[in-house]
Amino acid sequence: MALISFAEMQNVIASAFINAGMKEQEAQQCARIHTESTLDGVNSHGLNRVARFVDYIGKGWINLAAKPKLVKQLGAVEIYDGGRAPGVLNAIFSTDRAMQMASQQGVGIVALRNTTHWMRGGAYGWRAADQGYVAISWTNTESVMPAWGARDTRVGNNPFVMAVPRKKGHIVLDMAMSQYSYGKLQTTRLKGRKLPFPGGFDKEGNLTDEPGPIEASMRILPMGYWKGAGFAIMLDVLAAVLSEGAPTNAIDKIQEGSCTGCSQIFILIDPAKLGGETFTEEIADSVVDYMHESIPAENGTGVLYPGENALSTRHKQMKEGILVDDGVWSEVLTLAAKKG
Amino acid sequence: MALISFAEMQNVIASAFINAGMKEQEAQQCARIHTESTLDGVNSHGLNRVARFVDYIGKGWINLAAKPKLVKQLGAVEIYDGGRAPGVLNAIFSTDRAMQMASQQGVGIVALRNTTHWMRGGAYGWRAADQGYVAISWTNTESVMPAWGARDTRVGNNPFVMAVPRKKGHIVLDMAMSQYSYGKLQTTRLKGRKLPFPGGFDKEGNLTDEPGPIEASMRILPMGYWKGAGFAIMLDVLAAVLSEGAPTNAIDKIQEGSCTGCSQIFILIDPAKLGGETFTEEIADSVVDYMHESIPAENGTGVLYPGENALSTRHKQMKEGILVDDGVWSEVLTLAAKKG
Repeated sequence: MALISFAEMQNVIASAFINAGMKEQEAQQCARIHTESTLDGVNSHGLNRVARFVDYIGKGWINLAAKPKLVKQLGAVEIYDGGRAPGVLNAIFSTDRAMQMASQQGVGIVALRNTTHWMRGGAYGWRAADQGYVAISWTNTESVMPAWGARDTRVGNNPFVMAVPRKKGHIVLDMAMSQYSYGKLQTTRLKGRKLPFPGGFDKEGNLTDEPGPIEASMRILPMGYWKGAGFAIMLDVLAAVLSEGAPTNAIDKIQEGSCTGCSQIFILIDPAKLGGETFTEEIADSVVDYMHESIPAENGTGVLYPGENALSTRHKQMKEGILVDDGVWSEVLTLAAKKG
Repeated sequence: MALISFAEMQNVIASAFINAGMKEQEAQQCARIHTESTLDGVNSHGLNRVARFVDYIGKGWINLAAKPKLVKQLGAVEIYDGGRAPGVLNAIFSTDRAMQMASQQGVGIVALRNTTHWMRGGAYGWRAADQGYVAISWTNTESVMPAWGARDTRVGNNPFVMAVPRKKGHIVLDMAMSQYSYGKLQTTRLKGRKLPFPGGFDKEGNLTDEPGPIEASMRILPMGYWKGAGFAIMLDVLAAVLSEGAPTNAIDKIQEGSCTGCSQIFILIDPAKLGGETFTEEIADSVVDYMHESIPAENGTGVLYPGENALSTRHKQMKEGILVDDGVWSEVLTLAAKKG
């Protein structure tokens, strides 16, 4: 493990992206998102995705020349075709455009189709909250788990993001629909541990907390069993319907990497023009305080509001450096040095 | 158990509400919602809530004279004060108003504060879908479960509803944030059974599938553990911030029955004016078909899309009559006959 500064990481990632064919400014924008995610401790969707993103560009699965194109507009809703441009750039555009609409009409919705992997969904929640906006955003994905009562994978992980701005720390939820990610199963297995709670079914249909058999069966558990499966289906159908885009069943046919061709929704609301900033702060603080004043559970690790862990990791790593895996870092260094 | 026709049930419930002081038309409107919920098999929020609603009126916790009052308007977002009018009437008003706004601007949001229990949240999803609209609606509630890592109840059940219209059967999710309701714990205990999956912690903090110890500790499990707890907190803060209303911590202080003074959000979208009706149908059908074509799990009961179970129960009970508990039915009959 190594500790890397924010500036160094962003520069190295940007160089890797420029080597892959991106323009300087766009490479910096994407690199910033990857670095911020890693800073928050979400390496899986930050530094660890750099090589895969470069690989997708090389395979022609991501179109560096494309820009989101307005397809339809109705009042406070706009539909864009993402043209398979880099998912991060498309998601930044959509979030910013929806904020612009919200500042006029209270709410702005951008429905984005035919985009590519947005990396860490929470990035767009934090971005909105930093500018004082409320965000409800989600993406559909290729299928990663079975529907409830099924054994073959047909339901996407469909990450769902909600953000409420707050001066003392935004409240930001970034939640995939499976109880655990395949990444979590893998790291748990490599440590020789069990999952804290059952995470899926083995090939014979037995619920288990052993990661290996779940990775083999691909029968990972939706969060809350039937509830998360149902929620995932709703997010999928709604994203596709509103964007006139691809649902999970169509993404499954594309077969050009994770999330290529997916559909995303960005609902942005301006609370300052509604309840007002002071009111928002008071409410948000009262909700956080109420949680923090809880009686801790036995062996509990404390009560956190959504986003609190990311924020404290951010503060820590901004001071001490960002913790990265040596192998991953050297791979990105190689991509950055390639043509240099 | 008895079988009651739809018309009879609605008339009896309406009489009970008229006896409690409601005007004929409003009583019929509320009675229809209670009856429809019971028809769909959701007795807990239909017939079984009639007596409690009447009790709340008697105690002055519900204001029969109040109407939702516009507090603020900004483009496609409106804030209303519900004046503690009957929650069902307030929620119908809000859904209809947001649909009206959506037909003009693609999306309409009504943020409703100071309302009372809306009974079955799904009712407003079905209502929207019946008229071709997409709905995302939720309410906050008094606290019913601990935050993740805590042992005292500070988080609401905050039912969350999503609906997408579809000719062959709308896709409607109606999901509370706890894995099981207290009603489910009670009926499981009375049958001498265990829960299908662990539903909470006992007083010592052990995860258990025995309903009794969970009822005693009030440490019911959020769906998906930390995920559902985080989602519940987000829904609460957002409902309160957007409506300038009460979050769960303020509702907990009101102490005038379940959900009195709560905050609700109604986001309605008009998909026909966006992707168009034909497109919506095609996408929605493809999502449903993809689920139905799943390979069934061992001992599986089949794969259902959200809302499918309610719809088939509705068709069955419309033909055969609505199944009700004798004791509950006779209680409502008494309320209906009171002044007759």
